[in-house]
Amino acid sequence: MRHVITTQVENKPGVLAHVAGMFAARGFNIDSLVVGRTEDPARSRMTIVVEGDDRVLEQVRKQLGKLIPVVKIRDFQAVDYVERDLMIVRVHVPPERRTEVISLVDVFRGRVVDVANKSVLVEIAGPENKLEAFTDLVRPYGIVELARTGVIAMARGRQPSGSPQQED
Amino acid sequence: MRHVITTQVENKPGVLAHVAGMFAARGFNIDSLVVGRTEDPARSRMTIVVEGDDRVLEQVRKQLGKLIPVVKIRDFQAVDYVERDLMIVRVHVPPERRTEVISLVDVFRGRVVDVANKSVLVEIAGPENKLEAFTDLVRPYGIVELARTGVIAMARGRQPSGSPQQED
Repeated sequence: MRHVITTQVENKPGVLAHVAGMFAARGFNIDSLVVGRTEDPARSRMTIVVEGDDRVLEQVRKQLGKLIPVVKIRDFQAVDYVERDLMIVRVHVPPERRTEVISLVDVFRGRVVDVANKSVLVEIAGPENKLEAFTDLVRPYGIVELARTGVIAMARGRQPSGSPQQED
Repeated sequence: MRHVITTQVENKPGVLAHVAGMFAARGFNIDSLVVGRTEDPARSRMTIVVEGDDRVLEQVRKQLGKLIPVVKIRDFQAVDYVERDLMIVRVHVPPERRTEVISLVDVFRGRVVDVANKSVLVEIAGPENKLEAFTDLVRPYGIVELARTGVIAMARGRQPSGSPQQED
């Protein structure tokens, strides 16, 4: 099962190394790990997508909890949430077939950010499965280069009563 | 000066810990570090934004080059490139002022992905300065929560002659 976990961590040089080392040492199957800025310059937000059963998840939570710089841990198992991953991908396409690719980009609400003679550079944001569906559709044209950020996640504003994110 | 570097690394559990540990040990001022998937399951792509002069950049390149799992290093100093960062941000806003925020989102070509009674959740992708400009504009409303992925980058297709990305 796929789990999405976010933590607030202190924005210090060693924290990423510390967390990454812990995951590597324990051989957790990390799908993606993002450490990004928050509104508070002293804090970073780490988003971890991990595959495994509830026992694995509990181990990850415990290990994260042991790390002093980790401020807060939340997992989205019982919470309605939004997840987003960002991809930029250069698709090989000759001019006469360019409109095919561009119309696919429109359907996926992506953007063409660069056009060259034999390729287009596309930006798409969305849940992982959307990015994977687009990748599958353009693969036959030829993928020249592909980069993804990994997942960031946030709880929706309207939650079932009693949830931590309820604010209305 | 701000430098954007990408590397291809082997997709192994220890690589992130290794690279993060190297940066932490040397006290490099890393602005963002993203490790994400590529089209090749055996390879990850690391994008590092680092502040410093050319001497610092050269040190980073050398240190990365020493790490066996690093396959390829490219820096975008003399190359025309696209960079993208992704942000999701929950902005506190009462219903009567919601349209103000939504029109800002439109100007920045972002998307409202969730609406609650007293807040909206916004997704925006773009270069760092665009994300920072939007953040500055919504800060007076109140930022409830903010997450960013960090930067990914890719060379444009049309480059000055002799550049590695030339393909036309």
